[in-house]
Amino acid sequence: MTRAAELVATGEELLNGKSLNTHARELGRALWPLGWELARETTVPDDRAAIADAVRQACARVGLVFVTGGLGPTEDDVTREALGDWLRRPLVEDAAALEAMRRRYRTAGREMTPSRRSQARIVAGAAALPNRAGAAPGQRIAWEGKTLFVLPGPPNEFRAILDDHVLPWLAAQGGGAAPRRIFMVAGLGESDVRERLEAAHTLPPGVAIAYCAAPGQLEIRLRTAAELSDAEARARLEQAWQQARAALGKHIYAAERRSLAEAVAQELRTAGKTVAVAESCTGGLLGARLTDLPGSSTWFRGGFLAYANELKENLLGVPADLLEREGAVSDPVARRMAETARARCGADYGLAITGIAGPDGGTAEKPVGLVFIALADANGAEVVRAHFPGDRATNREWSVQRALDLLRVRLAGAPAAVG
Amino acid sequence: MTRAAELVATGEELLNGKSLNTHARELGRALWPLGWELARETTVPDDRAAIADAVRQACARVGLVFVTGGLGPTEDDVTREALGDWLRRPLVEDAAALEAMRRRYRTAGREMTPSRRSQARIVAGAAALPNRAGAAPGQRIAWEGKTLFVLPGPPNEFRAILDDHVLPWLAAQGGGAAPRRIFMVAGLGESDVRERLEAAHTLPPGVAIAYCAAPGQLEIRLRTAAELSDAEARARLEQAWQQARAALGKHIYAAERRSLAEAVAQELRTAGKTVAVAESCTGGLLGARLTDLPGSSTWFRGGFLAYANELKENLLGVPADLLEREGAVSDPVARRMAETARARCGADYGLAITGIAGPDGGTAEKPVGLVFIALADANGAEVVRAHFPGDRATNREWSVQRALDLLRVRLAGAPAAVG
Repeated sequence: MTRAAELVATGEELLNGKSLNTHARELGRALWPLGWELARETTVPDDRAAIADAVRQACARVGLVFVTGGLGPTEDDVTREALGDWLRRPLVEDAAALEAMRRRYRTAGREMTPSRRSQARIVAGAAALPNRAGAAPGQRIAWEGKTLFVLPGPPNEFRAILDDHVLPWLAAQGGGAAPRRIFMVAGLGESDVRERLEAAHTLPPGVAIAYCAAPGQLEIRLRTAAELSDAEARARLEQAWQQARAALGKHIYAAERRSLAEAVAQELRTAGKTVAVAESCTGGLLGARLTDLPGSSTWFRGGFLAYANELKENLLGVPADLLEREGAVSDPVARRMAETARARCGADYGLAITGIAGPDGGTAEKPVGLVFIALADANGAEVVRAHFPGDRATNREWSVQRALDLLRVRLAGAPAAVG
Repeated sequence: MTRAAELVATGEELLNGKSLNTHARELGRALWPLGWELARETTVPDDRAAIADAVRQACARVGLVFVTGGLGPTEDDVTREALGDWLRRPLVEDAAALEAMRRRYRTAGREMTPSRRSQARIVAGAAALPNRAGAAPGQRIAWEGKTLFVLPGPPNEFRAILDDHVLPWLAAQGGGAAPRRIFMVAGLGESDVRERLEAAHTLPPGVAIAYCAAPGQLEIRLRTAAELSDAEARARLEQAWQQARAALGKHIYAAERRSLAEAVAQELRTAGKTVAVAESCTGGLLGARLTDLPGSSTWFRGGFLAYANELKENLLGVPADLLEREGAVSDPVARRMAETARARCGADYGLAITGIAGPDGGTAEKPVGLVFIALADANGAEVVRAHFPGDRATNREWSVQRALDLLRVRLAGAPAAVG
């Protein structure tokens, strides 16, 4: 059975155009495999009455309510007070949270001011949820048979407490989660995958499918209808998974939730290989994506940001006449960039990107979105030409993902390596 | 006086983790300069009762309500029906919308099926708002002195009707916004700023302050209470702004909403200077942040990702004995990285980051979060030592922002280039 939750997001910045509210998507995605669904989301400003009103209404409808934001140290952070007022419970200082905060500020060489200290207060009777990514703890509040989770607004802190405390707690409540499977696809768009799985009636009856697309990677979730017996559900799901594998082949890059960068990192670690990069239009985004991952120093060497054309010549040895004749955005220049990055950084693989991210710089012959991606190894280089249809940010993102997928497929070898 | 609007977004995909709801940010941003503010946003699934309930509640609170999504041709597009039921008005086919749709499908070589045709229906008495980006028209509905705008869910169609019909209509209604001011601060935390402005009772009465913190930059908004006369409100706000300037000084980096990277880009453009980078623990994040900005090629040269220690030696000329003696995370290594990046890339400034992002690699002497940031110019290099208290992602983000602020402060004090 699916159970309903609601989210109340607080923060003027989510309503005045400053910030994008990503909590609903994150939470919807995280709750799904546990058999919960987000039934409504409400965003209100930093206003005690509005917060209390929205939480009260949510609690009248469902048994699980998430409240985000407004836990910081400033005067407009009023979520604690709003909930305390509404529940008629005082705020109390949590000793463990205060101690963690003291350590945090001491390490940073910052003072524990009264306003900072106020972040250690929680609603009386709540469980404080330690925050490894920031100062203010989360809270789990039990009230009249309902559960409220109160989480910080900054997405990394929200995510940390969600992962460390909320999802484990919900999983431990057990009961409802239908059997499900999550897997990841690269190199195929959502409509291609739909075509292969749905239009072709590939999946067995009773199996529902959901997609979550990001540039260059697609998360696919299979879930069975709740009316099936557990054994039957598991059998159908296994059948669906085998059929999806047959239909999608090497495009499946992981049998669990994982980014393309994480998959590449795993393959590099397993193979004991290293990579170096040479970036033009992405300006460091590929390197940043790879070094986001803890432990990347074992397989990432470094590289070159050859943004100005002279640097393609001076740092990467691309001959001036080649640049002149072919242009910086071309197959042979991408090839040379990848080869040189590999050689100068002493890596097994060199990965290069050169393109026109936009909005300016396009011509009839070389339009905005045209990108060349090269992968070099000891045997030479392979170059892929792509034309992305997006804006600057999207084209850069796609370029990085396409480069990662090129390396992933090479590392995986010819057959799919998914078990 | 500021006038309040609400948004009701409909669509299961906004709640189950599939899509990111961007309407609230778009709308909040578009309404701000017209003196309207988004007071609440509610997301509900494709369910007639839930949609009607949310719209009814919004209409009870404010005079302007936006409803998005559920105007397509499929069975789960029920917004039209939900509104018709609730308002007790029939749906009628709009002749102009139908004709526009016929032309649209003809051009695309697609058939006008009954389900597609159903998109031309609007609530009786509504004004149809032509949609240049898609099939379904928007609607403007007048009801009991309230105005409802009904807009399609796809962001490009939502935006097209917003720009073509909604914003012009709102602008024609006139009225004024409460005076407000936004400014940006770097190099001080939210609680430091709070101490200086609030604890010190720096601001005049009737002025409210709100903070929106991101790593390394802080947006501050001053607004006056609505009870003040317009002239009085403006006078208080100007007084508050002058007092904030006096209290925060050079930490204020912009008198409008702007990222630190944008501020640095603006300073570089104005000064006619260029920058190059050398990154270790940030692995490309600084370069990526700078090249996110369109037109960065005029002031960003490129740089080095010297992640492996041998590359600090081979690419950046850091002497092996220096690395051995001082360690890669040290003042003299950061200095040498910045100087070499500047020289080899032919830039006016070299900006380098070397540190321990975590979670591994820390020691008692050099703990996780310790970062050295160096800025080199023709006169030598300046090095800043910082210790950030966050997780890997946060420490990397802080490192980039601190580096940008170092360059910003230098540029703000530098004379503009001549000629």
